[in-house]
Amino acid sequence: MQETGQRARAAARAMARAECAAKNTALLNIAATLREQRAKLLDANATDMKAGQESGLDPALLDRLELTDKRIDDMVDGLHQVAALADPVGEITELRTRPSGIQVGRMRVPLGVIGIIFESRPNVTADAAGLCLKSGNATILRGGTEAHHSIQAIADCIRAGLKSAILPEDAVQVVATTDREAVGEMLHLSEYIDVIVPRGGKGLIERVSAEARMPVIKHLDGICHVYIDDRADFDKAIRIAYNAKTQRYGTCNTMECLLVAENVAAAILGRLGPMYQAAGVEIRGCEKSREILSGIRAATEQDYRTEYLAPILSLRIVSGLDEAMDHIDRYGSHHTDSIVTEDISRAHRFLKEVDSSSVMVNASTRFADGYEYGLGAEIGISTDKFHARGPVGLEGLTSQKFIVIGSGHIRT
Amino acid sequence: MQETGQRARAAARAMARAECAAKNTALLNIAATLREQRAKLLDANATDMKAGQESGLDPALLDRLELTDKRIDDMVDGLHQVAALADPVGEITELRTRPSGIQVGRMRVPLGVIGIIFESRPNVTADAAGLCLKSGNATILRGGTEAHHSIQAIADCIRAGLKSAILPEDAVQVVATTDREAVGEMLHLSEYIDVIVPRGGKGLIERVSAEARMPVIKHLDGICHVYIDDRADFDKAIRIAYNAKTQRYGTCNTMECLLVAENVAAAILGRLGPMYQAAGVEIRGCEKSREILSGIRAATEQDYRTEYLAPILSLRIVSGLDEAMDHIDRYGSHHTDSIVTEDISRAHRFLKEVDSSSVMVNASTRFADGYEYGLGAEIGISTDKFHARGPVGLEGLTSQKFIVIGSGHIRT
Repeated sequence: MQETGQRARAAARAMARAECAAKNTALLNIAATLREQRAKLLDANATDMKAGQESGLDPALLDRLELTDKRIDDMVDGLHQVAALADPVGEITELRTRPSGIQVGRMRVPLGVIGIIFESRPNVTADAAGLCLKSGNATILRGGTEAHHSIQAIADCIRAGLKSAILPEDAVQVVATTDREAVGEMLHLSEYIDVIVPRGGKGLIERVSAEARMPVIKHLDGICHVYIDDRADFDKAIRIAYNAKTQRYGTCNTMECLLVAENVAAAILGRLGPMYQAAGVEIRGCEKSREILSGIRAATEQDYRTEYLAPILSLRIVSGLDEAMDHIDRYGSHHTDSIVTEDISRAHRFLKEVDSSSVMVNASTRFADGYEYGLGAEIGISTDKFHARGPVGLEGLTSQKFIVIGSGHIRT
Repeated sequence: MQETGQRARAAARAMARAECAAKNTALLNIAATLREQRAKLLDANATDMKAGQESGLDPALLDRLELTDKRIDDMVDGLHQVAALADPVGEITELRTRPSGIQVGRMRVPLGVIGIIFESRPNVTADAAGLCLKSGNATILRGGTEAHHSIQAIADCIRAGLKSAILPEDAVQVVATTDREAVGEMLHLSEYIDVIVPRGGKGLIERVSAEARMPVIKHLDGICHVYIDDRADFDKAIRIAYNAKTQRYGTCNTMECLLVAENVAAAILGRLGPMYQAAGVEIRGCEKSREILSGIRAATEQDYRTEYLAPILSLRIVSGLDEAMDHIDRYGSHHTDSIVTEDISRAHRFLKEVDSSSVMVNASTRFADGYEYGLGAEIGISTDKFHARGPVGLEGLTSQKFIVIGSGHIRT
């Protein structure tokens, strides 16, 4: 692993200097190779799927493990999209002349070597490698053992694409998933890995956070709220609250808890309750809400702290904005929270005071992702504040150095 | 310490919402109180100085410990300068309308709770507290035991200033320096402290880096280089190389190693050598340089890796730009490096390819600091790439969250 690190560091130097055209050529060539090697990829994946079925992997995991034609197309499209994004490296901003006469600005540069630790989704290999490559970083990827053949087949395509663009093949290294010690070793390789991005379940992320000796860009829970204010437009409120819960259940930006202002609770819940019921969403509510919606289960303290990722919704009636924000602060996970109101002062207070990576007014929490935000693609959604917060695209994989331009200036 | 953390977290919430005017009032009132309490501060410091002299502290440490009228004035001026800076909190940037119709932008927010661990300079108390306060953060400060009375006297002024501005007094908490366990406890308090900034010697910084369970904004070595290219303007080259070494010896942005292109080495060193000699700078050079400057000591490998912080200079003659950049990459500390050249392509290559927090063209490395860069003040200079790089001002103590503004938008 030490040697992998050294090779990555050397490749990172070359990648930081690489021309945008070479990086784009590599991305497009990787995409073309993935398309050409489609049969090989499906074969390799079939081997992994068969072994997975035989060893009794659960269906959700098998679903993530599977490579379909559609998923290969998505990888190819993703690489095309990343190639089309502006190169973040070398961007100079805020170049200003100081009273001393020097010009001072900032230049965007790659972070260096990015470690990606992921689980069963083989397509992460191409998605993550593409973003790291475009942002001028070298990458070390370590995926789940169950995806071994699929990952290696994708890695072959990546190497071919890098080679054809005359970029170092070590710019993307895939650690053999059969090496059981690899994860632990990666997490201690702070000399060679500048940042680790874990992609997977909570267990993985907690382990990486606890053990990593370098910074981690991580995503923990998504306990997202929608607060319907008593100055909300009812139609917007109902549309947003319904969409935020039901558009997809298993995503981190799905609403898990609905807060409704007391004054409008009867009117709102009278309409929303039957809609959720029709969609098969189980509601767990506070005492007051159970007086309006008869027959729903009582919510426990634990319910308000739970990311269901399922057709279940916590519900609480609050006196107003302050109680809503207190609830979000106490029970939320600082991921994505939305207010529905027509009152501009309350909207501004919510935007300013709610301490979450995405804070919204009159919009569904489901918008919280890199594509919707225009980042082009995301390596993940950070629930930390340090360095990168919210969806992390190319920019989150870079840093800025200061540049100073003088013409013989000295300090006096 | 747990309780200190909880109080800081509560204060951080209030500080994040505080109006700019209240924060500025607090800063100006702290400054006024420091000025009014000058006699008390000098008395408290005299107690620390006396104890320090009796316990045989070394003169350099005693110098850092001392509070003079000038240093009190500097604290007061520093607070006035921070009050005059624009409030970074709430700044909205990049607000753009997406194809879906939502507006997406970023809002700057405080990091939360900043832990500052420092050594003997009592003035760090006011300087660091001022920056953290203006950026809407709560602060926990822990200074050196030898500065106990001085720090407490300054802390009293800070509390009075916060109180008069009706801001929570817990926004700046000073941990008793007599609590020997405090540093270790702070470094494990990741639930309540969002980032640690160590200010002091290498021993402190290494300990904090190794033990901290939260992100650290840290500054390690400053092994800074000036490379004089063979297309340099000789007068500029000599002026810069002389200034970068001799303007101050003990600062982190002082040049420690001079690299000179072979073609111009004789001409440049023929002029610079006697100037350094006259200034009392000892030169330690490579073989080739010793043929030009007779009588200088041979530089060892270790010399090229040393931050002298003293009138000593390493010198190496290189074949040109590539060898210079290789040397900087191998021996440097990625702090501040400068090229002297009139060749625009070489200047651009140096700016792009040298991986340091400040990269300069035709300017003295001594410019690398927050005041000279227009940040107003700095909490430190980061030699890391993650989050903040180079001089860290108010912006480095903040993060950006995403804000989304719709008018009933849902995801389809």
